[in-house]
Amino acid sequence: MWWSNPIPKEVRAVVEALERLPKGVKKFGGPDALCRAFARLVDHTLLKPEAQPDDIRRACEEAAGAGFAAMVVNPSYVALAAEQLKGSGVRVATVAGFPLGASRKEVKRHEAERGLEDGASEVDMVIRVGALKAGDDEAVEDEIHELAELCHERQAILKVILECALLTDEEKERGARAAVRAGADFVKTSTGFGPGGATREDVALLRSVVGRDAGVKAAGGIRTLADAGSMLAAGASRLGMSSSVSVLDELRGRASK
Amino acid sequence: MWWSNPIPKEVRAVVEALERLPKGVKKFGGPDALCRAFARLVDHTLLKPEAQPDDIRRACEEAAGAGFAAMVVNPSYVALAAEQLKGSGVRVATVAGFPLGASRKEVKRHEAERGLEDGASEVDMVIRVGALKAGDDEAVEDEIHELAELCHERQAILKVILECALLTDEEKERGARAAVRAGADFVKTSTGFGPGGATREDVALLRSVVGRDAGVKAAGGIRTLADAGSMLAAGASRLGMSSSVSVLDELRGRASK
Repeated sequence: MWWSNPIPKEVRAVVEALERLPKGVKKFGGPDALCRAFARLVDHTLLKPEAQPDDIRRACEEAAGAGFAAMVVNPSYVALAAEQLKGSGVRVATVAGFPLGASRKEVKRHEAERGLEDGASEVDMVIRVGALKAGDDEAVEDEIHELAELCHERQAILKVILECALLTDEEKERGARAAVRAGADFVKTSTGFGPGGATREDVALLRSVVGRDAGVKAAGGIRTLADAGSMLAAGASRLGMSSSVSVLDELRGRASK
Repeated sequence: MWWSNPIPKEVRAVVEALERLPKGVKKFGGPDALCRAFARLVDHTLLKPEAQPDDIRRACEEAAGAGFAAMVVNPSYVALAAEQLKGSGVRVATVAGFPLGASRKEVKRHEAERGLEDGASEVDMVIRVGALKAGDDEAVEDEIHELAELCHERQAILKVILECALLTDEEKERGARAAVRAGADFVKTSTGFGPGGATREDVALLRSVVGRDAGVKAAGGIRTLADAGSMLAAGASRLGMSSSVSVLDELRGRASK
């Protein structure tokens, strides 16, 4: 077990329960409570470009039913999701400069701003990967800083996607440091549209860099309870998944045995 | 041979030459002239998120050397590409709402506007795929119309990416019709980041819908001279490629035999 890094208490409790199922459920008082605690760590995600309004409505219902932390949708669906999720306790998250991160700073900012106006309270932005690789950490930090300020003015949080599959370890580290300096609330492994998703190694690396100064969101390719548990154990404090409902069903099944 | 559809004369001449290499080169007076005519149909493309400024500079040199129609770069690199390509005759193209098409209309517009200000004279936008699939052709058309007006005010052209791999034939047709009604200069098959690239069938379908009212750009997965020739023969009047230089080398080789 990898407890040397500062994992928040609520995450740690879930990880310990997951590692000893079905017995581990006892500490939570039952499967329902464990499922609720797990769901609070999940960003239910529907970013497929072909998603239709009805798909968004259905996903919002799933999110409200399960009590996920947030529902992540593309900018054109934020208003719809905000309407669907009103009063549910589920936050609406959206993206900026997604998934390539190669938009202009002003456009990312505008995108984030409109997302917040439409009802999002979390923004997942993608860094300028090429700038980071070229050593221009200042440009990377500057862009994050602008969006972080914007988000914080509106009591929203900013997650910063590094797209780890395109980076060397040294670049991941520089990117995570720039994000923390710039005031990001989370660093996030992947968009889910790149050449690779979250890995245990990347999550552990990011956690070791950000310590207690930011959350770590693992996203991309997390499709089973084992994947999810492994990411949390490695240091993730939020999971981005499209398969959230089936993973939660899996947890309920294993916890109820 | 598929001549029933209205292929521009310059494209037709290249296709006929390609189909009878090395003999076909004669009509052009030699390999160089054929290569130049071919290059004028190519959008040299570098949209990888990890591209660094030096990669962009190199690609711009390639574009200027070959005389490609345009150099397509992400928004954050338009100013750099415009500077590199000044006086070369190669246009700078950029993207809006790319590659998911799921940004808000205002943000796509803003992105296009900044691109034009930075020196682009072509914009490749992605439609709201989910809206088209849901039957909301009006929303799709409205968004295209706004960007078409913006581009035309600045003597720029607008290409509209349908992302055919996500669409049924009926949806491709509706999307292409909406694009033409909205004043698009080109319809384009794919982003190159979706689940599939250009196919002969899609190019032919799009050409049959748009007739002489718009160009057809084939993009995604075009990596050889055979691919390129096949797309032109099917009705494409512009090819988006990252492998443009090697394809042109292949043409020069086959034309010089």
